[in-house]
Amino acid sequence: MAEGRRGGRSARRAERMSMRVTSLPTLKRRTPLYEVLNDEGLELIHDGSCRILEEIGIDFRDAEALALWKDAGADVQGWRVHIPRELLMSLLAKVPGQFTLTARNAERSVTVGGNNVIFLPTYGSPFVRMEDDVRRYGTMADLERFHRLAYMSPAIHNTGLVICEPTDIPVSKRHLHIVRSLITNSDKSFMGPVTAPERAQDAVEMAKILFGENFLPDHPVMVSLANCNSPLVWDETMLGALKVYARAGQPVICAPFTLAGANTPASAVATVAELNAEAISALAFTQLVRPGCPMVYGHFLAAVSMKSGAPMAGTSELALMNLMIGQLARKYGVPFRSSGMLTGSKVTDAQAGYESAFNMFPIMLAGAHLIMHTAGWTEAGLCASLAKFALDAEQMEMLYKFAQGPQFGDFDEAMASIRDVGPGGHFLGTAHTQANFQTAFFMPELMDNNSFEQWSLEGAKTAEARGVEAAVRKLAAFEPPPIDPGVVEALDEFIAKREAVLPDTLT
Amino acid sequence: MAEGRRGGRSARRAERMSMRVTSLPTLKRRTPLYEVLNDEGLELIHDGSCRILEEIGIDFRDAEALALWKDAGADVQGWRVHIPRELLMSLLAKVPGQFTLTARNAERSVTVGGNNVIFLPTYGSPFVRMEDDVRRYGTMADLERFHRLAYMSPAIHNTGLVICEPTDIPVSKRHLHIVRSLITNSDKSFMGPVTAPERAQDAVEMAKILFGENFLPDHPVMVSLANCNSPLVWDETMLGALKVYARAGQPVICAPFTLAGANTPASAVATVAELNAEAISALAFTQLVRPGCPMVYGHFLAAVSMKSGAPMAGTSELALMNLMIGQLARKYGVPFRSSGMLTGSKVTDAQAGYESAFNMFPIMLAGAHLIMHTAGWTEAGLCASLAKFALDAEQMEMLYKFAQGPQFGDFDEAMASIRDVGPGGHFLGTAHTQANFQTAFFMPELMDNNSFEQWSLEGAKTAEARGVEAAVRKLAAFEPPPIDPGVVEALDEFIAKREAVLPDTLT
Repeated sequence: MAEGRRGGRSARRAERMSMRVTSLPTLKRRTPLYEVLNDEGLELIHDGSCRILEEIGIDFRDAEALALWKDAGADVQGWRVHIPRELLMSLLAKVPGQFTLTARNAERSVTVGGNNVIFLPTYGSPFVRMEDDVRRYGTMADLERFHRLAYMSPAIHNTGLVICEPTDIPVSKRHLHIVRSLITNSDKSFMGPVTAPERAQDAVEMAKILFGENFLPDHPVMVSLANCNSPLVWDETMLGALKVYARAGQPVICAPFTLAGANTPASAVATVAELNAEAISALAFTQLVRPGCPMVYGHFLAAVSMKSGAPMAGTSELALMNLMIGQLARKYGVPFRSSGMLTGSKVTDAQAGYESAFNMFPIMLAGAHLIMHTAGWTEAGLCASLAKFALDAEQMEMLYKFAQGPQFGDFDEAMASIRDVGPGGHFLGTAHTQANFQTAFFMPELMDNNSFEQWSLEGAKTAEARGVEAAVRKLAAFEPPPIDPGVVEALDEFIAKREAVLPDTLT
Repeated sequence: MAEGRRGGRSARRAERMSMRVTSLPTLKRRTPLYEVLNDEGLELIHDGSCRILEEIGIDFRDAEALALWKDAGADVQGWRVHIPRELLMSLLAKVPGQFTLTARNAERSVTVGGNNVIFLPTYGSPFVRMEDDVRRYGTMADLERFHRLAYMSPAIHNTGLVICEPTDIPVSKRHLHIVRSLITNSDKSFMGPVTAPERAQDAVEMAKILFGENFLPDHPVMVSLANCNSPLVWDETMLGALKVYARAGQPVICAPFTLAGANTPASAVATVAELNAEAISALAFTQLVRPGCPMVYGHFLAAVSMKSGAPMAGTSELALMNLMIGQLARKYGVPFRSSGMLTGSKVTDAQAGYESAFNMFPIMLAGAHLIMHTAGWTEAGLCASLAKFALDAEQMEMLYKFAQGPQFGDFDEAMASIRDVGPGGHFLGTAHTQANFQTAFFMPELMDNNSFEQWSLEGAKTAEARGVEAAVRKLAAFEPPPIDPGVVEALDEFIAKREAVLPDTLT
């Protein structure tokens, strides 16, 4: 810890400069996609999803939503909507394949869709594990620190939303302070709250203060997350938030919350068929609200252990399902979100490493465009970890470099150096090595590859301990990104006005 | 620890039965391959390798090898051999694309090549970290325990060789006891020693005792590992062992030992070109010794940190290089070996998990046929870990299931269950779930996905601690696989006879 506090102003400057230099733009993936389904398999699943929506139907538990579906020609019985596949596909075709998410610092704006990939931090953890290594409820102060880390992590493209829940603020007012922290502690794009339609509306108003009254309807500045209650129920809260954002021209990730085997069948392919039906029905619905509004095909996906009921990540079927879902999203031409560095581990141990990596790598190959939970996730999402945030964020830099693919730019010079060195020589001092050593191979800072003796001498620290130290060091160097004080004043006025009328509710 | 010792005979029987039931045959990969090079990139690298061998040449530091190359038409100057690409390719074409590695228990025989994949344990660690969590030199007793674990791990297809070095036995005699342990503690196939040609010959003689005098020349029963001293030197020891095995019809993995950036250029693609030249020159050479002898395209590959000189695994370029090498091996139609669960971590912590998994997953997609170091590797190979062996071995079962690809066998029944359950229901009790829950989703035993409370109640164990416990429990249940006592007697006679004439050398 002490190390992080040493150095003061000059350390802050050094860390800040290094961060500024290495802040990474949207990842343009140059590596190929990976497809585990042949055309027949893909059609079987797509057809299965269409049959679910035509024959079983799906609940849209919101009166306005039902009216919109009815007007569009769907068969509506109570909450249940049966959607003909022609209607479904014609609505789905209106979802843009790509959009720009504008950040308040234009250099941090990102592109979602196509061959672009963005990484986002973890989301929604009620608990945190910070440098004291105690698991406890998260606070607003914890969340601000996580927002700062997201800002200072080069490969984390978006500040997220509730990296941890600020449980010391009443639920009814929480969203106001979360959005304020997102805007003041970072200049990257962010996500919007969805816990109630009026909270979504507040976030839209705050974004208008930041970007100007007329910017929003045609410029996405927030991406939000609406979950389906699987199987086959979109509830009033989520539909309410979805409508607010769609009308404000703001994209929403339409994401079935899938615990495969519990709220889906005990079959990976049928799980995908159900999840797909849920996702595309919501995407189609958004186009009834505002045709052409950018949206994202989403999901949260874990497999349920049939022994314990516990959610599992990083397993065979998670990899296969993510790959299949990527193929479906491409078939529909819509941007696709997945969840990366997942683990059920309570701490940042070997399990956390195995599960996160085995979960994440196939998602990169699946062509996911917007990858949530790429930093800080432990305990199946219940606990945001400071250590894991730092370690994960560095691994995202590694994958960022992987996705650049093989680099042939200096191939002739490199081959010439083989001739110069010849059999039995070594390359450490060659001109080519000198010129290229900083870019040729990714060199992680937080993975310890030193000798056993060196590592022992430095305190025999685990990766978890090094992760905590790195995060603390980074936070000590934080300085807020510049912002017009008038904007902050206006945000604070808005928050005060809203807080005056909002009750201190706990839900 | 106590847990592992409870239960005695019945626990042993239970563990043994479960092991017998779940011992897995050769993995038949059904997932597609992943190719990061287009045809042009692949040809550039192949052509680069051919130019290295034609224009720069490669050292074969063995008089007989030079004579064989000269007779075949290569240009030989001192140790240096320049190999025309037509000669190279015509020799390479003689290497069989696939072979069977016969185990003494026929059910454990495996296939190398084609769409088959086998997993092998770690190899060559001087140090161990066992249940007392102390890093120390390995002994024969440690090695026997690792051989037993390899035997009892369903997805580990081969018992390996020196999972740790038995440093309590003189180097000159070590190979005899290693091979005896391989044969008596396991009935899976194994690897052969290569530290001297006469030791390779001893292993061949012991294999003849096991399989009969005339079985070997046409039946691979051991696969061995010869390393190239990169750049571009095959030394007398390795060529000596290579010749012994080739003449006995036993496959050898011809593996450049590549520390990318140190003994290759600071370029991933040029590293692959050099490594490829080294590997294919040795494969070609083996076909001068015994045309048609099965062989394996190999490599050991780490990237060197240009900051510290330390080898790194699980990074961007390791993934890309493994994928490129897979494409080259396929171009030549030869079986291909890689190295899976690598890490530089000194312990089985989050770093070990991240690096191992990010290193391993692309290797599966690269189409590697024989994957070494899939269980137990830590500290860049210097230390074999009991904990990591158990954890890694389970992750190999996970990947084994991944590689089966999507399963459509019960798709109609699973889809029917969606109709039965309907919106808002759950699937835990359905007939389809009951019938399929054991196979639908991989359920790891050693990854803890229980609640924080349950995990705390059970001692808040890290994955490393659970790995140690699992390994100890497994070892307590070990019973040697049946073997003809006459064979063991004959092996012991052979060992006694050889030991009587071998000096107690330390190298």
